Amino acid sequence: MAKTIITVGREYCTGGRYIAEDVAKALGIKLYDKELITMAAKHSGLSEEAIAASEKKHTHSLLYNLYTVGNDLPLSDQVFILQSRIIKDLAEKGPCVILGRCGDYVLRERKDVLRVFIYAPVEWRREYAKTNPLVQATTEKGIREEIDKTDRQRSAYYNYYTQNRWGDAHNYDLAINAELGKEACVEMILAAVAAKEKAEG
Amino acid sequence: MAKTIITVGREYCTGGRYIAEDVAKALGIKLYDKELITMAAKHSGLSEEAIAASEKKHTHSLLYNLYTVGNDLPLSDQVFILQSRIIKDLAEKGPCVILGRCGDYVLRERKDVLRVFIYAPVEWRREYAKTNPLVQATTEKGIREEIDKTDRQRSAYYNYYTQNRWGDAHNYDLAINAELGKEACVEMILAAVAAKEKAEG
Repeated sequence: MAKTIITVGREYCTGGRYIAEDVAKALGIKLYDKELITMAAKHSGLSEEAIAASEKKHTHSLLYNLYTVGNDLPLSDQVFILQSRIIKDLAEKGPCVILGRCGDYVLRERKDVLRVFIYAPVEWRREYAKTNPLVQATTEKGIREEIDKTDRQRSAYYNYYTQNRWGDAHNYDLAINAELGKEACVEMILAAVAAKEKAEG
Repeated sequence: MAKTIITVGREYCTGGRYIAEDVAKALGIKLYDKELITMAAKHSGLSEEAIAASEKKHTHSLLYNLYTVGNDLPLSDQVFILQSRIIKDLAEKGPCVILGRCGDYVLRERKDVLRVFIYAPVEWRREYAKTNPLVQATTEKGIREEIDKTDRQRSAYYNYYTQNRWGDAHNYDLAINAELGKEACVEMILAAVAAKEKAEG
């Protein structure tokens, strides 16, 4: 029985979602992603669309806003705080996989968390995008723009909320180039989980 | 029979050297580190001490020096160029493990290279240092300073020669927190080698 909480950060079009799904399946634990939004929406009374939209806009930093505007935080910051609380509650309940949403940072004080980052060279991701049903663009130029834009959004979101730098190995326990293949990524994550649980007894 | 060349970059006091040794042993291939210095020395007629010392001093960047001083490069740059040639020759001859010396960058144009980075939180490394025979310092303060200084040297060396940023996951195929344990690190590297070789047929 798994004891570890696994956070997975990933660049767009690396298949990180499918790797996270397979890890969750192999360990028999739940994966949380869009469901976090749904739960946040239920807690706040806001629509899922409003919450999803709020995740894409950031200025300054959360610390800056907390310092300057106090309780009148922008919607996006309130959503982040709400989601962070939900992530902490989920972690408290037991092992699970958390996709995105700065899970590594939100759970930084727990010892039972394996923090994973999945990335790949952009040329590889552009090829992968052609087979990925979640990608909306259909032309080479469109794919290039969609990847650049999503990278910028995720990076801005991460850097804004964590004050760390997106893609820095030090934020994670394991950072893997998706070029190695989905099966190998899953295998390495499971090996890391096993090692972590063995070390902690 | 292994086909892959493995480059291992590592922070000081992570046990990266021993991980690299175990990987080389498991695959039955050679590990190159100090031996690179010896080989460079033999090629250049310089003493090993002069070469080892030259690796610790860098200003500007190699590109800047190549542009401004041309053939009158500082000794450290000449040593880097010489070592890079040796690393490329070794890679040409067959699979091996290259420890440090920007191997990932030097061999960036080869497809048969697995680039690994080993790091760990600095608090963990300070504890590890107490059991590491290679560490010279004997007091808490001394260990702290020795780690800080060696990190700065390696980081400066890497950033100077590669124009990339030391510790950025994107420079590697696999970046592992040494806290997961030596055996797990070796296991994951071997899994990555197997996946890479399988993918390439």
